[in-house]
Parts: sequence; C-alpha cells; structure tokens
Amino acid sequence: MKYFVVSENDHNEIVSAAYLKRGYLVDEANEAARLCTEASRHGIRTHNAIKALHLDEMLGSGSKGCVPGAEIIEKPSRFPAVKIWDAQQKLGQATGYRALEKCIQLADEYGVGIVAVDNAFHYLWGGGYMLEAARRGYFAYTNCTAALAEVVPFQGKFPTLGTNPHSWGFPTADAVGFPIVIDWATSVVAMGRVEQFKREGMTLPPDAAVDKDGNVTQNPFEAAALLPFGSHKGYGLSLINELVAGLIGGSLPTIRNRWIDEDDGEKRGACFFFQVIHPEAISSGLFAKGRDQSGNIKAVIDDILGHGNEKCLLPGQLESNAAKLTEEHGGLLFSEAEVKEFNELAQECGKAPWEQSLLKTVSI
Amino acid sequence: MKYFVVSENDHNEIVSAAYLKRGYLVDEANEAARLCTEASRHGIRTHNAIKALHLDEMLGSGSKGCVPGAEIIEKPSRFPAVKIWDAQQKLGQATGYRALEKCIQLADEYGVGIVAVDNAFHYLWGGGYMLEAARRGYFAYTNCTAALAEVVPFQGKFPTLGTNPHSWGFPTADAVGFPIVIDWATSVVAMGRVEQFKREGMTLPPDAAVDKDGNVTQNPFEAAALLPFGSHKGYGLSLINELVAGLIGGSLPTIRNRWIDEDDGEKRGACFFFQVIHPEAISSGLFAKGRDQSGNIKAVIDDILGHGNEKCLLPGQLESNAAKLTEEHGGLLFSEAEVKEFNELAQECGKAPWEQSLLKTVSI
Repeated sequence: MKYFVVSENDHNEIVSAAYLKRGYLVDEANEAARLCTEASRHGIRTHNAIKALHLDEMLGSGSKGCVPGAEIIEKPSRFPAVKIWDAQQKLGQATGYRALEKCIQLADEYGVGIVAVDNAFHYLWGGGYMLEAARRGYFAYTNCTAALAEVVPFQGKFPTLGTNPHSWGFPTADAVGFPIVIDWATSVVAMGRVEQFKREGMTLPPDAAVDKDGNVTQNPFEAAALLPFGSHKGYGLSLINELVAGLIGGSLPTIRNRWIDEDDGEKRGACFFFQVIHPEAISSGLFAKGRDQSGNIKAVIDDILGHGNEKCLLPGQLESNAAKLTEEHGGLLFSEAEVKEFNELAQECGKAPWEQSLLKTVSI
Repeated sequence: MKYFVVSENDHNEIVSAAYLKRGYLVDEANEAARLCTEASRHGIRTHNAIKALHLDEMLGSGSKGCVPGAEIIEKPSRFPAVKIWDAQQKLGQATGYRALEKCIQLADEYGVGIVAVDNAFHYLWGGGYMLEAARRGYFAYTNCTAALAEVVPFQGKFPTLGTNPHSWGFPTADAVGFPIVIDWATSVVAMGRVEQFKREGMTLPPDAAVDKDGNVTQNPFEAAALLPFGSHKGYGLSLINELVAGLIGGSLPTIRNRWIDEDDGEKRGACFFFQVIHPEAISSGLFAKGRDQSGNIKAVIDDILGHGNEKCLLPGQLESNAAKLTEEHGGLLFSEAEVKEFNELAQECGKAPWEQSLLKTVSI
C-alpha cells in the first residue's frame, strides 16, 4: 500500500490548529497533537488525529463531554502516594499526560504513584501513556472507562459495559530494544471493526457479538452489541474498570457520555486510573548469574521466546517496528484517504493544506 | 452429591499437624491451615488442604522449593510505600498473608502499598488473600509466577510460561453482600482439568491445548501443553507475571521449581506481587445523587446487571454462595473421597481420624 510521508511539524501544526479552533488552550492543543503524533508514529491508525478530532466532535467539545480550558482540581487527601483529581472534563490527552507525570513524580519518591481521575474525557490511546512511562524506565499501568456501553456482560443480553481497556508498559528498551506495551480493549473486537466487517462482507469471529435479542451472531449486520473476550475472564477484566471508576466517583455505564436527560442528577464522565512503579522499588537485587535487572528481564524473555517460540511476537513489537519505519522514512505515514482528511481539516482551520504531489511516498 | 460436614477446628487440627510433621513452625502451620480453610469454606476444591499438602510434597518441602522455618528478609529500600522481600523459600501461605498485612499497613499510611517477594514458594490461591483484603475494605491485587511452565506463548510451540494467575479483590460487601473477587489463571484450562477430561473421556475446549509438536488439539491424551485464553490478550496477561517477576529477581520460567541441574547458577523460585489500595485514597467524594462510595458501587453494579442482565453472576458470587452453605451446615463440606484422604493424613501424623459415620452429611 502507498503511504505519504508527512513531517511531524506539518502534522502537529494542523492538529494543534484544529484543537485551538475548537477553543482549546495552546498547551491542551499541543498535548492533543503529541498523543496523535505518537499514535501515528507507532502505526496506531485507530487513534490518529483524524479519529481524535472526530471523537471530540461527537462526544467531546462538540457535545458536552469535554470542556476546553477546564482546570484540573486536586482533591485534598491524607494519602501521600495517591492523588485524586477532578478533571472537570478537561481534554483527555492533556489530563492523561499530566496524570502520568504526577505518577512518575510520586513513584520517584514513594516507589509507587497513583492518580485517580474523576470527571474525565476519553484519553484515546492508553498504550501511548504507557509507552512514554516505559521509555523513561518505569513500570506503568492504566485503565479507563470507555465512552459508551457497547459490551454485554458474560451470559447477559444487553450492553452495559464499555470496551474498557487495560494498558501496561514495561521498561524493556535495554532488554529487547523497545518497551513492551500490553494494550487492548476487553471486547473481542471494537465496534469500528464490526463496521469494517460489514463493508468487507465478512463474518465476525465466533463469540464476538450479539444481536438485539442477546443471541450470539457472526453476521455483522445483525450485531447489536459486543462480547467480552475470554468469557468470564474478559468480563471480569471489563468489570474492573467500572468498579475502579465506581470507587473514584464515576457513575452508571449505560448513561456515560450520553448527554440526554441530563437533569437526572447522574454523572456522565469517564474515570482514569494511572499507576507508575519505580523498577528499583521492586528489585531484590538478587539476580542470577550476576545479571542486572535489565539483563534479568532479557534472560527471562529469551527463555520465553526460545525453545521453538522464536517467531512469537512481544506486545509492543509491531508498534516498535512501525516507529522504525517512521524514522527510516523521516516522517509520519498516512494513506491517501488520510492525507485528504488532514487537508480538509487544514482548510477548516485556515491552514495551508499539504501539497500531495510534493509529499514523498513509500510502498509498504 | 453427598458431602460430610467437618468443623473448622477438626480440619485445622489435622492440617496443622501435617505441616508441623514436615518441619514447619507453629505459625506457618496455622497460616497454611487458614488459607486451606478459606478455600474449602468458599468451595475452592482445587486448593484445599489435600492439594496444598500434595503440592508441598511434590514441589515444596518434599523437594527443594520450600524451606520450613525460613525467615523473610526485608531488603533495604529508599521507597517508603513499597517493600521488597527475600522470602528465602518460606511457605507460600505464610509469606502471602504477611505480605498482604504489610500492604494494608502501607496503604493505610500512603494510600497504596506494595510488597514484591523474591525467592517465594507457591501461595496456592491468590483469590484467598484478595478476599481477605476486600473483606477488610480494601481494593487489592496480586499476581505470582506459577510453579511450572505449562503454557505456550501465542503463536508458539513450546510451553515457556506458567499458568500465571491474576487476582483482584474489591470492597463490595456493603454494596452487593460479598467481596467481588476476580481470580483466574491465564490458560484456558489448568493441567488438572486436562487430566479430568481424560478420565471422563471428553474433548477439550477449542484452543485450550497443543500436542507435542505445538499443534492445537482437543484430544486430552495428546495435550502436551496449554494455551493462554483470549489469544494475544491472555498471552500478554501471562507475560505480565513473568516480567514483574523478572523485575523483582525471578529467573527463567522453564526451569522454575525444577530442582535438577542446580549448579547452573540460575534461580528456581517463584515471585509474588501484592498491592493494596485504600479506597478513600482514590475517592473523589463527588458521587452522584448524594451517594457514598459504597452506594455508588452498588448503583454501578445495578446498572451493569440490569436491563435484562439480571441472571449474570459477579466474580466471587459462587464462592460467596459456597460460604453461605458452609455457614448454614455448620462446617466445611468434603466429599467421601476427601474425608478418606484427610483420614490418611491424620494417621500419618498421629491424629485421630474423623469417624465418618459420626459426621453429619448433606446432599447438594
């Protein structure tokens, strides 16, 4: 497939301008662009700037889910290693990056740092924050409640859970050349994939979706809701996000981000949970054969991917390969359709569009 | 099925005696009996005292995996909210309970507490510790590396991962009547289940096991190794335990608990990761409709299990139902085969066996 190479600067200029036009502050617009750049750099097409701005329009500042310029309030607490924030529906990427920085500060002091965020708006790509933490040498974890309830509990009929993702990052750059980042939703597939299956005339994987009566279907046109992966296990993982959010201050999943019937006294925002652990804090120092911590991780991974498992991938490896391609070609890679969308965006916010014929192309 | 009702005292007397006979200290024997009692009380037959003592014989004090009377060494650390322990292969249940207590102390002070344990021996039932933490009002998490590498990485051929369980406990007793405990291994089934499928002449679920060449098989007699649940997602979850253990000080999964060729300079023990969070530390206090934190959790769960999902179970519900049965019948419930095994154990350690004809029976 043919891709166009766009410099990060050119990309960020348009993306920031689009966020500024919607009323976001300069720092918010930059943080928004930063996560989108990271997503595109790592081949995460589902969370590039086009998708982020679309989400903002549908559920964020274009609706009542996100408030440009909102200030995060830190709630008083007697617990020094954990912070609790009321994000007042600030932009998700800005809140996410700031929560991560705070966790890192806390982890440097206490060994572990947690920031729990109430009244949040979708942070897009949890793996992006974890990648950043892992790159800086930390072991990190985050979860959030997804914007809409699209997933049916195990043995249920009606979607009352979000796709509720979990993301972990490990400081393995020295050991394997890139940070291991485990990052996925708790549904078998995302709703976007169901749409793709419709377009491509394909059948869904088994146990991925149910019809309007709650019966499992592989017909994407009949799919009304999603199923958690791994039966009761994925269901449990999805519940975790709702229970953590429930402890933080989040409210009913079925009305989340649905800004109708607002005077019912309920809340509609998402919650985030961020945690960072300093790897020295959990190191016994007792590594076999005189290894250091990183050497030990390498030995463990070599053992797991040895013995005939040499072709197995590590989580984060595909993203790392994509980042290498980005570096090799000197810019972010976008399809022709994506370039077109960026150029429409540029026009909307008064920026010069990219001259497609001048962009370098690569075939991959 | 018919069960015999055995008082906790009678049960603990035999179990403690069996551990004492193997050289364990009084406190260790009591901690061992405590976890086994909790397992049997909650219907966890895979981790009752018979299984625990069998494991200890095969991989613990009967081998070189566990050292009766071992002292836990706390390693020096500059991070106040995280402790790192060298368990020196102390009994898993004793180490597990003590790590949990330390986490609770730390969470009371810092909001979150972590204990990472190196040179550990199998703690049996992670859910048991989480149940205890949740019952006392905390949000807790643990993982450990399993004793043996039985699981093949996603798209691999050879077992290099443990069944590596994850367990979470939530303080939901006020909200739903019992603590929600999410607790499972990262393989589709356990090796014990494969044996059961053999005995019962049944075929394995799809994608649960591979034969000696790494090809997926549903024939339990051909099953040489297990597969992670949920393809790459369960693989990622299993990797987490190995990576965390690798950061702590754990070594190669394929030699774990295999005490042959010991002078290779490698380590063979397991690692534990325990974490407890004080629920107040992550509470924004901003609950809708004037709810308190527990009322909010209840509202969230009511929403998830409403809308036609009323028949769905919560994780921990079956265990809670089993505990109610135990209470109702006034003792732990064991099958005839289990009573026989306990009586053999009693004879081995010079205790009076249970007079089967005098035990109350119930049919369930």
